[in-house]
Amino acid sequence: MPVTSPLLDLETPAALIDDARMARNIARMQDRMDTLGVALRPHGKTSKCVEVVRRQLAAGARGLTASTLKEAEVFFAAGVTDILYAVGIAPQKLDRVLALRRAGCNFAILTDSVAGARAIVDKGRAENHAFAVMIEVDTDGHRSGVGPDDDLLVAIGRTLAAGGAELRGVMTHAGSSYALNSDDALARLAEQERKLCVHAASRLRAAGLPCPVVSVGSTPTAFSARALDGVTEVRAGVYVFFDLVMANVGVCAPQDVALSVLTSVIGHQDDKGWAIVDAGWMAMSRDRGTQSQAIDYGYGAVCDLAGNLIADCIMTGANQEHGIVAFRAGPARDIARRFPVGSRLRILPNHACATATQFSEYHVLDDTGAVQRWRRFHGW
Amino acid sequence: MPVTSPLLDLETPAALIDDARMARNIARMQDRMDTLGVALRPHGKTSKCVEVVRRQLAAGARGLTASTLKEAEVFFAAGVTDILYAVGIAPQKLDRVLALRRAGCNFAILTDSVAGARAIVDKGRAENHAFAVMIEVDTDGHRSGVGPDDDLLVAIGRTLAAGGAELRGVMTHAGSSYALNSDDALARLAEQERKLCVHAASRLRAAGLPCPVVSVGSTPTAFSARALDGVTEVRAGVYVFFDLVMANVGVCAPQDVALSVLTSVIGHQDDKGWAIVDAGWMAMSRDRGTQSQAIDYGYGAVCDLAGNLIADCIMTGANQEHGIVAFRAGPARDIARRFPVGSRLRILPNHACATATQFSEYHVLDDTGAVQRWRRFHGW
Repeated sequence: MPVTSPLLDLETPAALIDDARMARNIARMQDRMDTLGVALRPHGKTSKCVEVVRRQLAAGARGLTASTLKEAEVFFAAGVTDILYAVGIAPQKLDRVLALRRAGCNFAILTDSVAGARAIVDKGRAENHAFAVMIEVDTDGHRSGVGPDDDLLVAIGRTLAAGGAELRGVMTHAGSSYALNSDDALARLAEQERKLCVHAASRLRAAGLPCPVVSVGSTPTAFSARALDGVTEVRAGVYVFFDLVMANVGVCAPQDVALSVLTSVIGHQDDKGWAIVDAGWMAMSRDRGTQSQAIDYGYGAVCDLAGNLIADCIMTGANQEHGIVAFRAGPARDIARRFPVGSRLRILPNHACATATQFSEYHVLDDTGAVQRWRRFHGW
Repeated sequence: MPVTSPLLDLETPAALIDDARMARNIARMQDRMDTLGVALRPHGKTSKCVEVVRRQLAAGARGLTASTLKEAEVFFAAGVTDILYAVGIAPQKLDRVLALRRAGCNFAILTDSVAGARAIVDKGRAENHAFAVMIEVDTDGHRSGVGPDDDLLVAIGRTLAAGGAELRGVMTHAGSSYALNSDDALARLAEQERKLCVHAASRLRAAGLPCPVVSVGSTPTAFSARALDGVTEVRAGVYVFFDLVMANVGVCAPQDVALSVLTSVIGHQDDKGWAIVDAGWMAMSRDRGTQSQAIDYGYGAVCDLAGNLIADCIMTGANQEHGIVAFRAGPARDIARRFPVGSRLRILPNHACATATQFSEYHVLDDTGAVQRWRRFHGW
């Protein structure tokens, strides 16, 4: 990259998006879903950015997934009309759900309990409104959801249907896929996720209940599924940027990671071979997701200003506004010459969702070298 | 707390400040510094909130510490005129520093290298301005700073003084105190921090250089110092809220922690004894600072709506918008009865600085039960 890089004009730390890499990531997932014959409903939680989501929809995504009501409200205001809120609904949030639906958003919510279903139908009766509801199914034991063979599944479905709600279908998220790192194990988990969710749908249908939508997904299982028979849509989030955790899982290479943090060198500890940079955990987040994986990247993998990985160079430690950059092989005694005070580096994140949320805007680098600023939002 | 708690009207997750606890924390640190005869310069990085900082100044603090230029700009705009930016300056940030100083802020910056000092004096000459500069001293090897006996210390001082900068003094931060947990070890580190920083000051003075300010501090060493001879000011941040890491260090009790995250129960896994809540790592942060301490609190310690700790109940896991709440002793089979869907809990954080930054506002509970909203800011 020439010394006239527009990145030299940016304040640091800054969150950078490599537009070409992001475009490749979006196309890769969309192509995969098109090949498997299912709709893709990307997760807005990774970017929390209207411009990013518009790229995903333009590439063929149908509808969005939200992890907060704030995401649903912002994306609906930006023109997205088909949204699934993929976190079990707290009853006190139903007023905001109702407002979105009455404003014209095809907005579906989630529950995995009879108590939750009752709260939804009670609110629906009081407001003379039929909420659209998905039942969360647990296909890998890692978090929420009702077991596909549990009697509760049909009980929840009956509570919703009898109470006048629109039972839209079943959804699951095989989040344990983040802990895997072989093609075979990933393919097996993707098939387990598919099979158990389709099985849950068949049980609802056998009980005379509607179940038009069968929604599965996580970035690792989405790339690893060999077939998705019976599934109607796949949800995935982090693939839009990718990150070092996903590189360790094996569904991307570090060079595919489209998000990085631009940082400036502010000092050195020559004897230790440390360069101190102005991106600490406030910029990178406290996510240490690669700690338990095959390659531990500390707080991130270090790249030069052009975004090329510097071999064996990682952020080994982080305080709030200080990052420690060093080489794995041991102290580089010429660290101050390699990375002088005031020079810039780019750090690839362990977990893109966590790093991105530390920033209020992205700086987007396109192929011409121009930099755009895209807003990002916080909160719930 | 009565069932008419105003907390029941808040959206979840929300960041709560217990005003009475915060007031006690502020008074305790101020009293300690008054007794030791030094000025207190609190860190705005913990709260990033004008109202919190005003409480600290009203209690007797003299000036503020900032970890970002954004903090300095926001707090100066709110009327704080004496600020130290306690992170080594990147040369490209000097324009913003200059703007603050020309606007009337008594704003000091930091360096620990001759290269940094040269960049400061070069900019000062070009702008016909004398920057106020502190030299960072390394007293415990954990991060930045020049060794107190290093020839570089005097070289940096001479570069600054000869170049027309105002050499204001030396500062150090014994951040390794976070890894300690006994009174004796803390007192020893506090004395080491004091002694080595005072020694650095004496070396500058012996070289004929000015060194009016000797600034030390971290929350653990501030509470553990037996005497602070030669020190002029102490910096500390997290004491304003405290957190579970500080409880493990031993400088507060969990009941002193003034920051908590209000959350709603959204589901259960009865067999596992899990309650699923709507505060995941997006609310708590990914900070797992208690993981390596005597008591590992997972992602936080669980309290009832009134803020009383529930014995042995912690957040054992977190996804982006899901927290898993469970008892240490093993699955509580009556978890759904104890914590029904829609009920609220409060979670004390591992690390208050990291959790607070996930939010754009605080809800502040005073003794009358009223709730105020205070803005919090993001970014650099």
